[in-house]
Amino acid sequence: MNDYIEIINKKLNEYMVIEYPEDIFKSMKYTVTLPGKRLRPVMCLEACRIFGGETDLAVPTACAIEMLHAQSLIHDDLPCMDNDDFRRGKPSNHRVFTEAIAVLAGDALLSYAPQVIIENSKTLPDKTLIRVLHEFMTTAGAFKLIAGQVADIESEKGIIKNTKEETLKFIHTHKTADLFKLALKSGAIIAGADGNQIDKMEEFGQIFGLAFQIYDDIMDEVSTFEELGKTVGKDKKAGKLTYVSLYGLENARDKIIELTAQAHEIIDRYNSEIFVSLLDKITSKITVKN
Amino acid sequence: MNDYIEIINKKLNEYMVIEYPEDIFKSMKYTVTLPGKRLRPVMCLEACRIFGGETDLAVPTACAIEMLHAQSLIHDDLPCMDNDDFRRGKPSNHRVFTEAIAVLAGDALLSYAPQVIIENSKTLPDKTLIRVLHEFMTTAGAFKLIAGQVADIESEKGIIKNTKEETLKFIHTHKTADLFKLALKSGAIIAGADGNQIDKMEEFGQIFGLAFQIYDDIMDEVSTFEELGKTVGKDKKAGKLTYVSLYGLENARDKIIELTAQAHEIIDRYNSEIFVSLLDKITSKITVKN
Repeated sequence: MNDYIEIINKKLNEYMVIEYPEDIFKSMKYTVTLPGKRLRPVMCLEACRIFGGETDLAVPTACAIEMLHAQSLIHDDLPCMDNDDFRRGKPSNHRVFTEAIAVLAGDALLSYAPQVIIENSKTLPDKTLIRVLHEFMTTAGAFKLIAGQVADIESEKGIIKNTKEETLKFIHTHKTADLFKLALKSGAIIAGADGNQIDKMEEFGQIFGLAFQIYDDIMDEVSTFEELGKTVGKDKKAGKLTYVSLYGLENARDKIIELTAQAHEIIDRYNSEIFVSLLDKITSKITVKN
Repeated sequence: MNDYIEIINKKLNEYMVIEYPEDIFKSMKYTVTLPGKRLRPVMCLEACRIFGGETDLAVPTACAIEMLHAQSLIHDDLPCMDNDDFRRGKPSNHRVFTEAIAVLAGDALLSYAPQVIIENSKTLPDKTLIRVLHEFMTTAGAFKLIAGQVADIESEKGIIKNTKEETLKFIHTHKTADLFKLALKSGAIIAGADGNQIDKMEEFGQIFGLAFQIYDDIMDEVSTFEELGKTVGKDKKAGKLTYVSLYGLENARDKIIELTAQAHEIIDRYNSEIFVSLLDKITSKITVKN
């Protein structure tokens, strides 16, 4: 895992160039290169590896997915959205670079990420490259990630039509799981995996994403600023719809145990230490807190 | 020209679907389908035609470029940017849908536009499709359109290092001309034009873009709200760097005459009534006002 993280951090640093006008490039680089767990790019590289792909081939796409993730963080933190002053333990992007630059840095990352994929994946077959780009675009947009963010905002305002249970599932699926699915699927696609294998990665991404988001909901309740690097207890204060607010802390923990068991059923056949250790991290943390 | 506009409007309506959560799709559709001159998509289709391409093949890309244009308008109008209440004669996006939804609608358009290109250009050769996507991404990002917008914001705040003349040229080139260049070049690329022909379109786009922006600067001074569909005299009030503020109204008119003459030198050989009539519109309007 550390090897992957090292490659990703090195490449992210390389891709995040500073040109004129410097503020916009600095703002993009600031959030992308904040220390993070790099979960999504790691999962992209690992999905590529388990299906026999050269992980080097997946590095540009893995980095592009981290850029997309950073983009969503920058815009989610804006005053007109979650209005969050901290991210990964540092002042959020708009607090350092102004709101205008933060909006534009997010915009710029949305097109820079696929640009990086195109410019650095010259040895991929054209059809594979187009497929990866298509997965990237559909995930980034109003059908997936942004659908989740909009449902999240609207549920907070109480302007949703569906039940709270359906809405929570919708938000967790689209706001969180879809990005993990993109990472896993595109890694598999780059490796030349078949349809069934790609579907398995999608399933794993969905389950992992839900478990991860419930874990995140728990952490918002029980963690400290130092651990989390962002404002704690904010969801609760905002009356936000979370797994914990809807089902309670105990049920949330049980659900994670259930989901990680399902995830193991899918991934155990691939002998991936990395996937196993990612699942272990989620469960060990919630068990300690029990 | 009207045939082109009709096709573009019909297709834009078709592409701008409304799904759940409806607000985000409605917000995207609202700005994209506001009545507009559709200059950029028209130029894309015409560039495709003059180099012997089937214009149908360029329609998805032409529409995607209009979506990118709409995206930039939505974000430019935000309170943290130009804070504009009107666009094309109607309340601007954030005034109808809230600031949060307007930010997300812009984001969603940035990925939906290339998604539309990929999903509707199946008969294009893969290499051509990838090239069009690459042109699209680089134009949308921090090296071109966003570079122009950032320089514009920073020049307004007086935090630029270069001379005013250099900065104005930079803003006009990147904020305005680069989108025309994308439209013209991608039309030519889709038609299978050669390198020299594509370069000619780039040159034409640069000259047309500068002329168009100077025209726009003049209109901000001498036009009415009804003509413009947006707040008038705003640039002047904001002390914004424009061609008129820097060189005066007379020099601005002279510059347009000079630029349109240069544009004619490039495009007259192609027998394009449409390109000629677009140039005529810019010059006739400023001559009447003389």
